[in-house]
Amino acid sequence: MKVKNRKFSTIWYENKNVKIIDQTKIPFSFEIKTLKSLSDFCRAIRNMEVRGAPLIGVTAAMGFAISLKKDPSDSNINKSFNKLVDTRPTAVNLKWAIQKVRSGIENKKKSERAKIALKLALNIRKNDIENCKKIGLNGVKLIKKIFKKTKKRVNILTHCNAGWLATVDYGTALSPIFLAHKENIPIHVWVDETRPRNQGALLTAWELQNEKIPHTIIVDNAGGYLMQNGYVDMCLVGSDRTTGSGDVCNKIGTYLKAISAYENNVPFYVALPSSTIDRNIEFGKDIPIEVRDGEEISKISLQSSNKIVNARIFPKVIKTFNPAFDSTPAKYITKLITEKGLYNAKKSEIKKIFEN
Amino acid sequence: MKVKNRKFSTIWYENKNVKIIDQTKIPFSFEIKTLKSLSDFCRAIRNMEVRGAPLIGVTAAMGFAISLKKDPSDSNINKSFNKLVDTRPTAVNLKWAIQKVRSGIENKKKSERAKIALKLALNIRKNDIENCKKIGLNGVKLIKKIFKKTKKRVNILTHCNAGWLATVDYGTALSPIFLAHKENIPIHVWVDETRPRNQGALLTAWELQNEKIPHTIIVDNAGGYLMQNGYVDMCLVGSDRTTGSGDVCNKIGTYLKAISAYENNVPFYVALPSSTIDRNIEFGKDIPIEVRDGEEISKISLQSSNKIVNARIFPKVIKTFNPAFDSTPAKYITKLITEKGLYNAKKSEIKKIFEN
Repeated sequence: MKVKNRKFSTIWYENKNVKIIDQTKIPFSFEIKTLKSLSDFCRAIRNMEVRGAPLIGVTAAMGFAISLKKDPSDSNINKSFNKLVDTRPTAVNLKWAIQKVRSGIENKKKSERAKIALKLALNIRKNDIENCKKIGLNGVKLIKKIFKKTKKRVNILTHCNAGWLATVDYGTALSPIFLAHKENIPIHVWVDETRPRNQGALLTAWELQNEKIPHTIIVDNAGGYLMQNGYVDMCLVGSDRTTGSGDVCNKIGTYLKAISAYENNVPFYVALPSSTIDRNIEFGKDIPIEVRDGEEISKISLQSSNKIVNARIFPKVIKTFNPAFDSTPAKYITKLITEKGLYNAKKSEIKKIFEN
Repeated sequence: MKVKNRKFSTIWYENKNVKIIDQTKIPFSFEIKTLKSLSDFCRAIRNMEVRGAPLIGVTAAMGFAISLKKDPSDSNINKSFNKLVDTRPTAVNLKWAIQKVRSGIENKKKSERAKIALKLALNIRKNDIENCKKIGLNGVKLIKKIFKKTKKRVNILTHCNAGWLATVDYGTALSPIFLAHKENIPIHVWVDETRPRNQGALLTAWELQNEKIPHTIIVDNAGGYLMQNGYVDMCLVGSDRTTGSGDVCNKIGTYLKAISAYENNVPFYVALPSSTIDRNIEFGKDIPIEVRDGEEISKISLQSSNKIVNARIFPKVIKTFNPAFDSTPAKYITKLITEKGLYNAKKSEIKKIFEN
């Protein structure tokens, strides 16, 4: 997507180096970073310089390939695999992507491993772009349907950032939104601030602004009020891991919006590439939930005299608890929007995704 | 309640002056302010130097009395009444309290009005303290009941600040909590941060810390996850206005917690003095909801080199929408805790409150 009219993706391979957009700086500044070593990649994922399930999958695959370029030994394969998998526990794409590369180099000559790994990683990257495009095509139908019915601007509520910054390009939840705007369907996006890291206010708003799509930031507390009062036509979010029976694990607070949508008859859609589906797990409650440092709550990023500072908003002495994700049971989800089409959040339907 | 081992209330009359604790400074600093003119009072309420339905009622009554001391004319009665009522639209106590004083001076001699008004205002203040004490006594029974059953530390989730800072003393939702702690019932409070003004993280946490009650700050997004996973035994919040049929209007985000409690079989209690009940309104959707300045979302208070600064956390260009309250339908509320006892959130029961 575009940044100041220039086309960008979130991660790319250029002159034998992997480059990323450092997302901890947006919207205050736009900085490109080069990742060179395995520890560069691990740090970038852990500190959320790259984030979003699809993107951390691609980043991990690229990191794995770069690490094998330095040392293609079996022991480094294991070490790199484990180090990357350990960076973040909830999104399943991370493991899925590295596993995909690892399987591809099994029984290959050491001298060929790095080259094959890079090719596979770049392929995962390419597929991610294509899948997000298809999610857009499938999801835009739902927006059009509402517009056709109401003949009014479609109000869409989204949580966190499931835009192009969470993927390689186009995004998951925002992909249908970008496409709807391109096709001149009048839309307006309610952007949840998304505490504690404010990905909505910082990243989603920035993406929408770059594409000139009307949007309004609200605090996470406001979504219920908006839905009760008819200000939301549909909710549209991403997913970090989806179970075999259709429970959706996503950024903390998603569950509250989903039950509010359910209570107020607002359709609740989840956009995801099928790579985020983990059929080894049946219920959301069994997904490991990452608990992050409480300083993410008590400190906040802001721009002060042209520097980005991390300022304390309440005293350090206070105890905090910071789970990063929650699970939304399938019953609250109207449809899953995947690259393969629209599916009900049901075991029998999810099975079909993998048969297609 | 105590501040560094010295007893305080939020508003008091001392040497012919009204004094308040400036709550916009807590927990960074503790400052007492003197309110002298009608505009001092209006500004203190509007800027939330005092806040919380019961406290703004008492403050408005005191402001009304102080204004009559300067000018007890009929025209100033009208002017003062209107100016104070206009400061904040949602909490019903504000109008209720000034109306109470106004009725008391009707048909009185001009020379007597100021004295009578002050006496009535101080009486409202005194009653507020007594009512909050009684709310504590009635509410603590519910905490004890859970403790008796589970024999484990009782985990209570609260939203915003309904502590002594929201009243004259003791608080509404926190009053049973203070009492439970005094009676050595093991408790732990989950404190919702409460965006955008962070009254949970700033005020509730400060109150609990002063009383040495175990507590943990969470982002507003986390409550659903906690309830799904059995970490919450009860929710306990305050109310800015309660309708004749038991719908509860309270700080934005309360509704999301209430429906989550309902979905997860967690009891949801609302503590309120009967003065917050507005029997002229039957349904929560008819309560006027205050929409406050969006800068409350895009800027945040923090301490920087010993000064409290209001720093911008996302660019000014972005549109915001900032409703300050929402309504929770009666069906999600387990019990209303009032100074007169425990009641179901039902028209027939609310009628009883006023017959007692």
